[in-house]
Amino acid sequence: MMPTTKILSALIPPWWSRYQQRFIGNDIVAGLIVALMLIPQGLAYATLAGLPPQYGLYASLLPVVLYAVFGSSSVMSVGPVAITSLLTASALAPLALTANDYVLAAALLAFMSGVFLFLAGVLRLGALAQLLSHPVITGFITGAAILIIISQLKPVFGVSVHGENTVALVLALIAALPTANWLAAALGIIGVGALLLSRKYTVSLLIKIGVASNIARTIQRLVPMLLLLLGAALVFVFDWQTKLAVVGALPDGMPTFAMPTFNSSWFEHLWVPAIVIGLLGFVESISIAQSFAQKKREPLDANAELRALGAANIGSAWAGGFPVTGGFSRTLVNAEAGAHSPLAGVFSAGFVLLALWFATALFSFLPITLLAATIISAAVQLVNISAFRHAWRYDRSEGGAMLGTAGGVLLMGVEVGIGIGVALTLITLVWRASRPHIAVVGLIPGTEHFRNVTRHRVETNDKVLMLRVDENLFFGNAESVASEIITAHTQHTHCHDVVILMSSVSRIDVTALEMLHRLNDDFRLRDIRLHLAEVKGPVEDQLKESDFGTELTGEIFLTAYQAFQKLSGNS
Amino acid sequence: MMPTTKILSALIPPWWSRYQQRFIGNDIVAGLIVALMLIPQGLAYATLAGLPPQYGLYASLLPVVLYAVFGSSSVMSVGPVAITSLLTASALAPLALTANDYVLAAALLAFMSGVFLFLAGVLRLGALAQLLSHPVITGFITGAAILIIISQLKPVFGVSVHGENTVALVLALIAALPTANWLAAALGIIGVGALLLSRKYTVSLLIKIGVASNIARTIQRLVPMLLLLLGAALVFVFDWQTKLAVVGALPDGMPTFAMPTFNSSWFEHLWVPAIVIGLLGFVESISIAQSFAQKKREPLDANAELRALGAANIGSAWAGGFPVTGGFSRTLVNAEAGAHSPLAGVFSAGFVLLALWFATALFSFLPITLLAATIISAAVQLVNISAFRHAWRYDRSEGGAMLGTAGGVLLMGVEVGIGIGVALTLITLVWRASRPHIAVVGLIPGTEHFRNVTRHRVETNDKVLMLRVDENLFFGNAESVASEIITAHTQHTHCHDVVILMSSVSRIDVTALEMLHRLNDDFRLRDIRLHLAEVKGPVEDQLKESDFGTELTGEIFLTAYQAFQKLSGNS
Repeated sequence: MMPTTKILSALIPPWWSRYQQRFIGNDIVAGLIVALMLIPQGLAYATLAGLPPQYGLYASLLPVVLYAVFGSSSVMSVGPVAITSLLTASALAPLALTANDYVLAAALLAFMSGVFLFLAGVLRLGALAQLLSHPVITGFITGAAILIIISQLKPVFGVSVHGENTVALVLALIAALPTANWLAAALGIIGVGALLLSRKYTVSLLIKIGVASNIARTIQRLVPMLLLLLGAALVFVFDWQTKLAVVGALPDGMPTFAMPTFNSSWFEHLWVPAIVIGLLGFVESISIAQSFAQKKREPLDANAELRALGAANIGSAWAGGFPVTGGFSRTLVNAEAGAHSPLAGVFSAGFVLLALWFATALFSFLPITLLAATIISAAVQLVNISAFRHAWRYDRSEGGAMLGTAGGVLLMGVEVGIGIGVALTLITLVWRASRPHIAVVGLIPGTEHFRNVTRHRVETNDKVLMLRVDENLFFGNAESVASEIITAHTQHTHCHDVVILMSSVSRIDVTALEMLHRLNDDFRLRDIRLHLAEVKGPVEDQLKESDFGTELTGEIFLTAYQAFQKLSGNS
Repeated sequence: MMPTTKILSALIPPWWSRYQQRFIGNDIVAGLIVALMLIPQGLAYATLAGLPPQYGLYASLLPVVLYAVFGSSSVMSVGPVAITSLLTASALAPLALTANDYVLAAALLAFMSGVFLFLAGVLRLGALAQLLSHPVITGFITGAAILIIISQLKPVFGVSVHGENTVALVLALIAALPTANWLAAALGIIGVGALLLSRKYTVSLLIKIGVASNIARTIQRLVPMLLLLLGAALVFVFDWQTKLAVVGALPDGMPTFAMPTFNSSWFEHLWVPAIVIGLLGFVESISIAQSFAQKKREPLDANAELRALGAANIGSAWAGGFPVTGGFSRTLVNAEAGAHSPLAGVFSAGFVLLALWFATALFSFLPITLLAATIISAAVQLVNISAFRHAWRYDRSEGGAMLGTAGGVLLMGVEVGIGIGVALTLITLVWRASRPHIAVVGLIPGTEHFRNVTRHRVETNDKVLMLRVDENLFFGNAESVASEIITAHTQHTHCHDVVILMSSVSRIDVTALEMLHRLNDDFRLRDIRLHLAEVKGPVEDQLKESDFGTELTGEIFLTAYQAFQKLSGNS
């Protein structure tokens, strides 16, 4: 058995050994600033997820601590974020649960998602995140952000409407406008406006009046908290709690810590959403971690990140919380507030806990419409229209995948949207590879280099046809490659030597190998020799193992230049 | 409007203008021989599809004629084949129809499949067939053939058993063996043995006794017919119709020609199977057409084939038949019997019609067990175990896709099996491309050619790191390519110039372009210049359109040699 000290030392995270006492002041300050930003976010995202607001704080306690133990990024801040909160709501809605069961099911969902992530990390599946293309991710985030904005218009206008789908919901919202609570609406709209404007102008204004830029940025981060406090003060002073929805009395203190109760019917409905939430949360978190790791020149281990996010979600579930992941704005604040280590996150969790003990009375006056305003202003940032323009311009099919994902998420739900995006991406991949570029090439005079005859001034020889195939040979293009080669030869009927330049071919599958056999036989009958050149090492090994190497009527040349010299009779 | 003569001339197939009167004798003889082989096949495959035997003859009338009008192969013979008959049975079984409705639904299925194929041809989707890899096709055919053999053991042993799945069916068959009809079993087993042995030895035996080889082959093709006639004679002589199942009285003459009645509930269940049957039938047919076109040096138009198969299926449906496609054995016989044109097929349809008028009394004595024997001996030929061995040896993942498809077809049904195969193939494709081979390369002395430093004796320079990426850059490998390039550089920290050889890169997607941006920025901060060399024309165009071209810290070189010379300070 492993000695206990060894087990303990395995649990001590790597950054701890590098920790210096003089960091602690910075970490405490960063922890406080982050906590002051996290508290309104947590309360708001819990309502987005369909839970009572305090669950957002419960979900902010353990994840940061557990991430600090398992994670590899020193500034990452893990907790409730907009996207996973929306995914939680859309996973739980079809179950039609009572309020009590809803809370339990959300914790189960976080637990399942955590187990999936942790196992994926143990199985070293970190590369999985690569399988979602950026257009699909961007399309998904934009679609989800628009969904979030639409869903938060309900609390802003103080109406309670439902819609089978997004279009129906928007129509129902418009129809319900005459019954809107205009006090809530005014407060909410002013809130959104204030938050959006403050994000744009606070820092420059403060700098203009002489505030140091880092302090100005800190103040800007506290605007949401100040806005909520102002809103609560207004409610308290004018007795608005009778006129609009407020958070109301929250239970004081710690949540009950317990593993979520297992329910097989919930499990059956939730395992697909749990995996989707885990995967998308991971994709979001790892891309944030990557950009910060690059700036700080820190190593990043995708599998450690998977395990850390898994542990964070299990921790969230243990405190009765809901799915969490690394968030961009919270991580940015953490980094800018001067955090030196994950200890800052632990301090911020401590401050959240203090708020849970001492400030719940304050929260009870918070108007719900301002929580919704917080969410909307965060979601607006996630909508990325210029990315659509860029992707569309660079490549129509990628723009199409992005639009398809966003549209699918908006109109048919999150999972269908991502399914559409992935399917479009895969179809494009196979489709592109199925119509490979095949160039007739010639020698660039004075070099040993061969390029496309239609793009460059090159030497050719009537007796030798040199063709470059710009794609791996596989089932998707075997037939079209064969027919293009035959077609190219019909335009050079005097050639009795055809050389295929394999510089772009890294793999030949069984289907393509059969095609090469047939092409070789076909050319043999017409007295044409088939040669290969610039065959890569791994492909040469594969060809040698099959019997194609011996059946080939021509030769396998190391370089195209050698082939050209020998077959033209120059050497 | 188009003048009528133009419409008529568009309907006259291209082979007609090349037709010569002296071909007609050959075509009539070929038609007769094919008909004598088709009649037992048609009767048998109808029973495999779950239909009364005469429907196999109905399905053999119009398809050949319509194929002759629309198709591009001169020897292709279209009609009922084993695989589509099995697919028909498995599509219709879940509907639990009465015998009468079953016949109508089979015709509707053929019609839907025909419309799908015809539209696919009009939309020029012939390349679709490329999307199924050979391992998936081979795995599917072997799995389906084993299913066919197992299903035909029921009539051979004269037992009526059912099984939820293949394993249950085999167990039920074994359990029912004590109640088997041993006369039917003896006849069936002798039949299978005789057919298999005759396929192997008839020709060589006949040649040995002096028969010309082409006549010997013709006689061999007639063995199934002779066996059925012998069986019918035995039944007639020994009055076995009371002891074993026979075909029984068939209606004389022509089928009723009518378009199938539409039924929306059937349509809902059958549209997926109709597409699957159409697609798999097309894949089977086009690969046969390809191999014959190659031998005969005829052009082959995949879209014309789609339209022709579509028309053939609509024709089959009009005569009340079931889905049809090009069959290998019937096409082979047609070609060997000396068919000069599709007219041979028209003659064979005529002979089938004659049989329907005058020979149905003869068919009534045919023992069902011998029809099953005909099917089994055909299916045995489709089982291709050595293909599994070859694929597995060449590439584990392709062998796995083949096994997965065959196993899926056998244990979970045809559509699930193909789904498994396609999914495995796509996953392999992305997975392979996501772990690209990246080689550090050096100059082969005395040439301008760069190869892997670990495989070849090459010149390198400490100041210049030359890397060749053996894959298109796309979302699936962007991250791993970036991290491999960075890792490679950490082993050559004195280099301030990194050159990426793009000879294998035919495409860069949005995700990979963002990766290149980040890599370039990252290197810039560390005072390393990033260069590209051997960038293909289309990729260069794409890079120029994006702003990457201007941001690149280094240069884009035409050839790796130029980059090496310049950066080493040799030029």
